[in-house]
Amino acid sequence: MSLTIIHLENSRSDRLVWLLEELGLDYEVETHQRDPQTQRAGAELKKLHPYAKAPMLRDGERMLIESGAIFEYVLGRHGKGALCPDPSDEDWPDYLQWMHFAEGSAMLPILLDHFQAAGLAGPPGESMLAAMAKDGMSQLYGYVESVLAERTWFAGERFTAADVMMGWVVEVVETRGEIEPYPAMQRYLAAMKARPAYQRARERAAASA
Amino acid sequence: MSLTIIHLENSRSDRLVWLLEELGLDYEVETHQRDPQTQRAGAELKKLHPYAKAPMLRDGERMLIESGAIFEYVLGRHGKGALCPDPSDEDWPDYLQWMHFAEGSAMLPILLDHFQAAGLAGPPGESMLAAMAKDGMSQLYGYVESVLAERTWFAGERFTAADVMMGWVVEVVETRGEIEPYPAMQRYLAAMKARPAYQRARERAAASA
Repeated sequence: MSLTIIHLENSRSDRLVWLLEELGLDYEVETHQRDPQTQRAGAELKKLHPYAKAPMLRDGERMLIESGAIFEYVLGRHGKGALCPDPSDEDWPDYLQWMHFAEGSAMLPILLDHFQAAGLAGPPGESMLAAMAKDGMSQLYGYVESVLAERTWFAGERFTAADVMMGWVVEVVETRGEIEPYPAMQRYLAAMKARPAYQRARERAAASA
Repeated sequence: MSLTIIHLENSRSDRLVWLLEELGLDYEVETHQRDPQTQRAGAELKKLHPYAKAPMLRDGERMLIESGAIFEYVLGRHGKGALCPDPSDEDWPDYLQWMHFAEGSAMLPILLDHFQAAGLAGPPGESMLAAMAKDGMSQLYGYVESVLAERTWFAGERFTAADVMMGWVVEVVETRGEIEPYPAMQRYLAAMKARPAYQRARERAAASA
């Protein structure tokens, strides 16, 4: 087995490092930089895959893209049953929901708000897209908070790979400076950051930057 | 078993109808209308789930959201191994990629372009977001075309549930009137629409509208 994370600074690839640390797998990190002008990934990523989006995972001869797919692949092929409930488990449907929610329902309002705040959609705060993004953020935060108020981890009382997908989303709320009104998200983030694998992953990603 | 699709007109829920037809499962369709003013789903969806997004699936007492999660749930619990390669199969990594790509990498540029074309981000075509959306669409179409030029279905030579997820995306290209330069996408859509289950699903969705 030879796993290499194609890592882009300040990107979703941080959580793939974390997943591999949680699973105790050996891996390499190959770090790429963003173009200082455009903040986009360099043309070198294009040489690795025609739809170059970080993270990518190289497993032997195979290059994989799309965060959720990479997670399912690693868990299914190298995870030995760790970090995911069995389909017969009561928590399995929630696990599936959060694995897909992280890059589906959650990311759209976050990205819309990011784009409009950066002025990419005209003057910040003035477009209908700005109002749509704010409305979406509010709905997203309220829903996540209500779920985390009722359980320890996203798929129940056990930590799963859905927390590695969704933990990154909750961390975005903190990075945006918007977590103060949400005690359940704060409690969740503290428990997440206390995990040794999370800490190893942050060190590993920083060291390879 | 009692499956009910919570269906919203003109939405991603069409493909869930198609999946259940491909699997030959019994199901009900419960159709909801958009608000004529806002084009958004009615408040009644909120009564069914706190993060009301169509489609939803009701399976007995449980309500599920998030298209990709609903697909995995239905395949795992009711699919009897149909429409998805086994993890030991050579096509399995591609299958996973396309299952997640459909609501991940594919939908972002499509939605950005839709929002900016609708004038939600200021005058259409004038913002940096408009340029970003056009660039993303171009990259998306080129990638999908190159893949479909090399294989019959998204995950190889066999039709899988990833085609039900991604087929909807290719249909969006056709609906937007942009499919003419892409012969592989046209060939793919023709094969998709020739499937009896696809045709039954369209009839079923239309009958319940």
